[in-house]
Amino acid sequence: MLAAFKEAQMGFQEGGIPIGSVVVKGGEIVGRGHNRRVQKGSAILHGEMDALEDVGSQPASFYQDVVLYTTLSPCSMCTGAILLYKIPHVVIGENKTFLGEEELLRSRGVIVEVLNDDSCYQLMQDFILNNSKLWNEDIGVVDNNDL
Amino acid sequence: MLAAFKEAQMGFQEGGIPIGSVVVKGGEIVGRGHNRRVQKGSAILHGEMDALEDVGSQPASFYQDVVLYTTLSPCSMCTGAILLYKIPHVVIGENKTFLGEEELLRSRGVIVEVLNDDSCYQLMQDFILNNSKLWNEDIGVVDNNDL
Repeated sequence: MLAAFKEAQMGFQEGGIPIGSVVVKGGEIVGRGHNRRVQKGSAILHGEMDALEDVGSQPASFYQDVVLYTTLSPCSMCTGAILLYKIPHVVIGENKTFLGEEELLRSRGVIVEVLNDDSCYQLMQDFILNNSKLWNEDIGVVDNNDL
Repeated sequence: MLAAFKEAQMGFQEGGIPIGSVVVKGGEIVGRGHNRRVQKGSAILHGEMDALEDVGSQPASFYQDVVLYTTLSPCSMCTGAILLYKIPHVVIGENKTFLGEEELLRSRGVIVEVLNDDSCYQLMQDFILNNSKLWNEDIGVVDNNDL
């Protein structure tokens, strides 16, 4: 989780949304990423997606024993990617800022652990304080300023 | 759907998985894409994701009246992206080759139409005939050749 948190901090320093993720296989990090929606004008590069993209194209058998770490509870899109590749185990830094699709993951047999990590939570709170519009875009919520 | 099918054909010509998608808003195409997992060594660029990425980063209000067209029933990841951005309407070319998460979409209030388009179906069948391994990777299925 420390490696995922460092990715989140890197995102924060770049002016992006501070969510980081790493993919671990056999005790080794095989992919790492952070949310780059702001940095790349992307609609799909959430932290988890960026980490999976860093892993690259792999056969389904590759994912059978990987663990995905993410600093924040995964949204519908990242949850869908976890389900697509049948990743069996997800470790989440915190879900106080945003509660993603943890129930859907569990209902499909994924092991979901939530660490309630205060550093992950504080980093997101620091970001949202000055960037509520960017954050609402990230989770598909209509911002009052858009109406 | 014709525009999405043309994207799928383009993917086929590039040696990629022939699934295409377009995003329509107010009667105009605002994003188009096709599966580029093979072309880019990507784990996340399914057709729908590529089209959403072509639309780019937008506030949630943008998606409230868009229609997403895709030549093939959307997998978990693309379904998750549709749910994240609360896209209200999805038109699917065919679901005989692969039945995606249509029930999950409907259960969350998304209008899902399936056209049973024979051209979309035939293009996929032509591809899978010679590329079953690539196709299995695409939908997270373990290929017997990997074991």
